[in-house]
Amino acid sequence: MRQFLDLAALSREQVQALLSLAQRLERTPEPAALAGRILGLLFMNPSLRTLASCQAAMARLGGSSFVINPGAGTWQLETREGVVMDGAMAEHIREGLPVLASYCDALGIRSFADGKDLSADLGEQKFNAMARLIDKPLINLESAANHPCQALADWKTLDELGVPAHGRFVLCWAYHPRALPLAVPAATVHMAAMRGMRVTVLRPEGFALPPAVMDKARRAAAAAGGSVAESSEAREALADAEVVYVKEWASTTHYGDEAFDAAARARLRHWCLDEHWFAPARPDCRLMHCLPVRRNVAIADGLLDGPRAVVLRQAYNRLPVQMAVLHQLLKPSE
Amino acid sequence: MRQFLDLAALSREQVQALLSLAQRLERTPEPAALAGRILGLLFMNPSLRTLASCQAAMARLGGSSFVINPGAGTWQLETREGVVMDGAMAEHIREGLPVLASYCDALGIRSFADGKDLSADLGEQKFNAMARLIDKPLINLESAANHPCQALADWKTLDELGVPAHGRFVLCWAYHPRALPLAVPAATVHMAAMRGMRVTVLRPEGFALPPAVMDKARRAAAAAGGSVAESSEAREALADAEVVYVKEWASTTHYGDEAFDAAARARLRHWCLDEHWFAPARPDCRLMHCLPVRRNVAIADGLLDGPRAVVLRQAYNRLPVQMAVLHQLLKPSE
Amino acid sequence: MRQFLDLAALSREQVQALLSLAQRLERTPEPAALAGRILGLLFMNPSLRTLASCQAAMARLGGSSFVINPGAGTWQLETREGVVMDGAMAEHIREGLPVLASYCDALGIRSFADGKDLSADLGEQKFNAMARLIDKPLINLESAANHPCQALADWKTLDELGVPAHGRFVLCWAYHPRALPLAVPAATVHMAAMRGMRVTVLRPEGFALPPAVMDKARRAAAAAGGSVAESSEAREALADAEVVYVKEWASTTHYGDEAFDAAARARLRHWCLDEHWFAPARPDCRLMHCLPVRRNVAIADGLLDGPRAVVLRQAYNRLPVQMAVLHQLLKPSE
Repeated sequence: MRQFLDLAALSREQVQALLSLAQRLERTPEPAALAGRILGLLFMNPSLRTLASCQAAMARLGGSSFVINPGAGTWQLETREGVVMDGAMAEHIREGLPVLASYCDALGIRSFADGKDLSADLGEQKFNAMARLIDKPLINLESAANHPCQALADWKTLDELGVPAHGRFVLCWAYHPRALPLAVPAATVHMAAMRGMRVTVLRPEGFALPPAVMDKARRAAAAAGGSVAESSEAREALADAEVVYVKEWASTTHYGDEAFDAAARARLRHWCLDEHWFAPARPDCRLMHCLPVRRNVAIADGLLDGPRAVVLRQAYNRLPVQMAVLHQLLKPSE
Repeated sequence: MRQFLDLAALSREQVQALLSLAQRLERTPEPAALAGRILGLLFMNPSLRTLASCQAAMARLGGSSFVINPGAGTWQLETREGVVMDGAMAEHIREGLPVLASYCDALGIRSFADGKDLSADLGEQKFNAMARLIDKPLINLESAANHPCQALADWKTLDELGVPAHGRFVLCWAYHPRALPLAVPAATVHMAAMRGMRVTVLRPEGFALPPAVMDKARRAAAAAGGSVAESSEAREALADAEVVYVKEWASTTHYGDEAFDAAARARLRHWCLDEHWFAPARPDCRLMHCLPVRRNVAIADGLLDGPRAVVLRQAYNRLPVQMAVLHQLLKPSE
Repeated sequence: MRQFLDLAALSREQVQALLSLAQRLERTPEPAALAGRILGLLFMNPSLRTLASCQAAMARLGGSSFVINPGAGTWQLETREGVVMDGAMAEHIREGLPVLASYCDALGIRSFADGKDLSADLGEQKFNAMARLIDKPLINLESAANHPCQALADWKTLDELGVPAHGRFVLCWAYHPRALPLAVPAATVHMAAMRGMRVTVLRPEGFALPPAVMDKARRAAAAAGGSVAESSEAREALADAEVVYVKEWASTTHYGDEAFDAAARARLRHWCLDEHWFAPARPDCRLMHCLPVRRNVAIADGLLDGPRAVVLRQAYNRLPVQMAVLHQLLKPSE
């Protein structure tokens, strides 16, 4: 494995191998596996889990890391090609990224969607432009339309909870005051499909996931014996659900249209999940969310603090799965 | 020891054991004691000494650390319970803190006083709410009303200087343009009392330390054979002093009343210590301060640069005492 | 070696020894050489290469580092002597710097020019004031008028490219929207002179390097068998050049006069290097720049992306030369 950019680039067997390795590293620490190895971490956007867990994962394996936040202690990075750089951006990624890569053994990059042009974001134009500049192992720490570390941690969480491979998985839209990116919903629907689950994407009108996302998930489902459907009817979608994965995202029919998006979302404040939403679901139905979550905006306190919520387990699992990814990318083969 | 939150939670013997361990680690480094161990550092407020010395302490013992600054590269953290999170705070401590704790072996938290409600601050409402969310060893890196790492470093400094256990110790208020928290004065008066010293708190009218702080210190003094008094008369308070510990803090009679506080402090600019203040003190009387200090505002250049000042020694001692604390919290027992 | 502040403080033999050590550490890693050693990094100004490569250099040698950015998570540091600190600066370097030094084995400091008083900047008043406060090995990570880590990396790059010791080296001014400091041009002209090269400084009228800088370079050239000239005629200066080192800097005739400087630079936007500039140079003439570089402002895309550019090699070389410097400063002698 030379890169970890998209779960879809791996076979199910490769995913299983990573999850086995993650479990093994939890049971049997390898505190010197990556001694002397360095992970560079480039955060174009804020982070809590990823920032802390990537550093912790390297440290647990005996390695080191450094963190670069453009615009905070570091020059702002220009990403556009061919531009006359007479504005605020002091450095171009064409220099900045190869330079950072030359100081480390692997690079992790977080770079959120611009949120203006749906096809540019879905096509990962910005992230791919950065990836092309780097000749070291690269990890996607959330790009415009993907978040493979989160997806792998969520898969591990589902396994640990004993959720059946073909169980009912609902990806459920929730309200958020801002137009959030598609990275987590896109990664989640694909992950659940690739795991073989019967997936329903539950979202209000105007917030359907783009065809490219749904089609990719459907192909993964077909290969794994699962299915992918969508619905805007909560009662129907949540029937017999074993997992409800809540996520906030922007309007896709009017992507990048802030005024429309804000108005559309303002009418959907009741998409704040509480226990009532789980009436049609199985009694032991789980609540998942990638965090951060706005309490009493996307999910009610009672639900987050109740027995359904496994959000802390998901977040913890970022650590062992990233240890497995780093181990595979950086451990010298014996 | 599972936590290091307040010197008052330790017996004098436990404090002595920590100071002995600190000395031993200075003389006999243990560069692999905490190999593979991780300290998470959460700074809700600025820091220089604590930020640098905590990372250095872990590194000296072979461990690692990561730093999280909410609002700078990381989401702002909401601390209020039951709130509808539709404002600037993207994540709640109810998720953020357990998640960070799950990535490390011990967590250090700095969280200053809100400075609005005296009883909330003295009761450590905010810090205790955070502490309850964490199931890992926890270190108080300055809370609303405590700073045990500073107190322990100051105790070590007093020992090294040969200041007698029952010597005369004056905690002396000084001017500052802003209403500063009570954490250091509260920790300092208690530390000196617990060490058995004859303590006087010298402060202008309106700036008396709250009864809860004084009573706690008096109980510690009674157990250790010392005493705690207070005064607003400099000449009287400083007579025969062996140590003058200078600190700035807000008005306690009008706590949280910014207008009153600013007006009251504005009349007290002459509480800027210089050599004249030491006339009634013993000739070898020492000047202590926890830093940072505003030169020629709280303390005059001549005093800080003169032979009385031991402020750099105090600051250096943060390193060995924190190494001792981390060693006790994290070293696997043999 | 106790400090690394200026290449001029070293003999040519010492520079050669550092370059040999850098090469050796590239070929034969020493992952435990600096085990348990700590580098403190104080950045008063932004950084990408220095920030990442210093941390990477320590990690490659088994050591650790911590980073302090005054004003971002840390108090702003006052540098003026004798000032009444009732403004925004909460801490003075007279305390802050010795404290940081006491937590580490070596300190690296970046502190750019104030850009107001040429003789203060050339005299390194601010950096020298900081250096006097520190009793640990100290590394200059770019001061008002020097950047020895960059100069050493550039020397290594010239050696690797096989540029003859007495080859033609042109330091060429380029346009930038802001008045940039003299640190890199001053360090570069001295480095090339000390290497024995035939150096020409090519710059428009009003941007001549100060006599103190030129004289120091001329003395180094005289000792090494090279020469230092200056010119404002591109065609003449670039004739037969083997290396063109591009750099932006402020007007020196009106140093600190922002209005004059901005007006003077505004007329010089055509000093944006592209392939045409290289017509008089040797066919294999190299393009150097310390980065960050504003594309199509200082240097055209075609040049930066073409075969002449060795800017990424220069940046990479920061890592091995800093490893050599740290190794010499911190490795216990056997």
